Amino acid sequence: MSQFSAIDYQMMSLAIDLAKKGRFTTAPNPNVGCVITQNDVIVGQGYHKKAGEPHAEVHAMRMAGEQTKGATAYVTLEPCSHYGRTPPCAEGLIKAGVAKVVCAMSDPNPQVAGRGFAMLEEAGIEVQVGILEQDARALNRGFLKKMETNRPFVQLKMAASLDGQTALANGQSQWITGAEARRDVQAYRAEAGAILSTSRTVIDDNASLNVRWNELPSQVHSVIDSTELRQPVRVILDRQNQLSSDLKLFSTEGVILRVAHEGGDLNIPAGSSEQLDLAQTLDVLAEEHQINHVWVEAGATLASSMIEQQLVDELIVYLAPKLMGADGRGLIGALGLESMQQVIDLDIKDIRMVGSDIRIVATPQLKKK
Amino acid sequence: MSQFSAIDYQMMSLAIDLAKKGRFTTAPNPNVGCVITQNDVIVGQGYHKKAGEPHAEVHAMRMAGEQTKGATAYVTLEPCSHYGRTPPCAEGLIKAGVAKVVCAMSDPNPQVAGRGFAMLEEAGIEVQVGILEQDARALNRGFLKKMETNRPFVQLKMAASLDGQTALANGQSQWITGAEARRDVQAYRAEAGAILSTSRTVIDDNASLNVRWNELPSQVHSVIDSTELRQPVRVILDRQNQLSSDLKLFSTEGVILRVAHEGGDLNIPAGSSEQLDLAQTLDVLAEEHQINHVWVEAGATLASSMIEQQLVDELIVYLAPKLMGADGRGLIGALGLESMQQVIDLDIKDIRMVGSDIRIVATPQLKKK
Repeated sequence: MSQFSAIDYQMMSLAIDLAKKGRFTTAPNPNVGCVITQNDVIVGQGYHKKAGEPHAEVHAMRMAGEQTKGATAYVTLEPCSHYGRTPPCAEGLIKAGVAKVVCAMSDPNPQVAGRGFAMLEEAGIEVQVGILEQDARALNRGFLKKMETNRPFVQLKMAASLDGQTALANGQSQWITGAEARRDVQAYRAEAGAILSTSRTVIDDNASLNVRWNELPSQVHSVIDSTELRQPVRVILDRQNQLSSDLKLFSTEGVILRVAHEGGDLNIPAGSSEQLDLAQTLDVLAEEHQINHVWVEAGATLASSMIEQQLVDELIVYLAPKLMGADGRGLIGALGLESMQQVIDLDIKDIRMVGSDIRIVATPQLKKK
Repeated sequence: MSQFSAIDYQMMSLAIDLAKKGRFTTAPNPNVGCVITQNDVIVGQGYHKKAGEPHAEVHAMRMAGEQTKGATAYVTLEPCSHYGRTPPCAEGLIKAGVAKVVCAMSDPNPQVAGRGFAMLEEAGIEVQVGILEQDARALNRGFLKKMETNRPFVQLKMAASLDGQTALANGQSQWITGAEARRDVQAYRAEAGAILSTSRTVIDDNASLNVRWNELPSQVHSVIDSTELRQPVRVILDRQNQLSSDLKLFSTEGVILRVAHEGGDLNIPAGSSEQLDLAQTLDVLAEEHQINHVWVEAGATLASSMIEQQLVDELIVYLAPKLMGADGRGLIGALGLESMQQVIDLDIKDIRMVGSDIRIVATPQLKKK
């Protein structure tokens, strides 16, 4: 039934691996990889590394040179059709004389959305779409969610003892998880466009919430060097204007957006509740700050609000091999549930050991309203 | 450096697999497997199935028949040297003319403890000991712990949502875990000599705490048939004499031991605390009821007492893909810890999915006193 050959799968799989190399640097652009072949032999390959720099197709075409003529190009995302900071890739592929373009998926960006394919086909190039689409979508969960819903992709990080406690009754919590789990968190932060937290977390832990080169795991060091490190925007909910400039947060490099009802860097008008409107905050981050992907790292209160409001796309839960007792502080706040039908169901996507801690990746199922 | 050959490892590994087939039926006897070879070809094999029935060596020798003469016997545990309900296996091996005996470990039973090996060597049989010893020990954690400490091996079962809640605030808890996790619990129960619980759990859940053939997973059905099913002794802590005869517990097959200060089936004298002395209860189960292996299934109070008193050898924790909120009931009770140095550290032995739930097997590290 498939229009795709084993070679097609192999080449697209390579293109996807190439695209992944950009995951710490491309934001807000999508991750894209490209492989160019002549008679099933690879003659060019490349990936998009950073906004403003050449797209994946351009790198691959430069490598292939004259051999681009009559070649097949495998691209993880539909080639762009619009003039942005770089000329449209569809035009580049046409000019270079490519014979066939195989793509994993179309680009939901309304400036592209099928127009790239149309340009190629009008120029007589054979176009095939849909190979390894799920893997290609996984490369760009933030970019796609923002394009499709105008809201960023949201990951919520939580860490607790095996019995679900995040601190002792007296507040002590350092360290629940081990060094390897903390390195893993650094890698997640490095992939995000923004880190969302609260003034309470920043103050209680004097947290800098930044990405620290020396604490990144080796899989990050293998794809970027220290000069390429990008600091996610730190977005701190600070309704009561509690952040003071002597906090470590302010002495570290990177943009900080203080969110408040007024007088903040990002102001969310007060609604019926005293709390800052979280959905609106996320929407403003997407629309005004080009944030595709938010990593939430705070306490139980923000965690349960985000979960209750169904704003979380993925939970990353670290469980330490410890028991702390029920007199500690819980992983999430009270949910006020009255029946087992009301519990929040999750789909477990991955469980593994990270050092001596357990890491669970899960997605919340949508609640019936 | 090793005195053992690749063939030796292969044969002992098979003997261990054979021994495992007895794990639902041998209690209070140990699980033992035996393989007999002539020139590295298997001529006999067997395992111990049930107390009072032939030992593994006897089954294997019967199968090997005349070929036992001059053979090598691989046995997971030192052959016994004493007359019990069956004659000593060491004697049987000598009479049958075995040339060599390879054992994984010696038998800590004071009635054996090296005497089996001595008998064999005195008869001119070559004896080698220590191959795959760890795997052989894992076969008989209950038997070994009882022999070595006069106390049973204790597994504590816990089940909670991912945020560590075992019930909603109103007590609702059915079902947190899924059908496959509940089947898995049935298999654990079937392996145990006793199930320890409390009158509160029995009353609140009207729990029968038995093993139900139809709910056992297929790996149990593949080694025993329904007539061989053995019900663990149900040991219920019932200090205040709250169990009434109309409970489901009493309408199901199997022995029930009510534990109280007085008037129970098993009486533990009251000490300085009103609570039943748990260590003493375990000791009495080992000494007077031949219980090697206790499976604890109760609520947070008993769980935290057992953990605090360092009576738990292994934790089996099922975490369901659910969030229930911190207003629910915690996995264990309060531990009153005041510093992170006091938390109970665990070693994670295994994590895996059981149906849609996560199962974590962990052992508590001994606390510095």
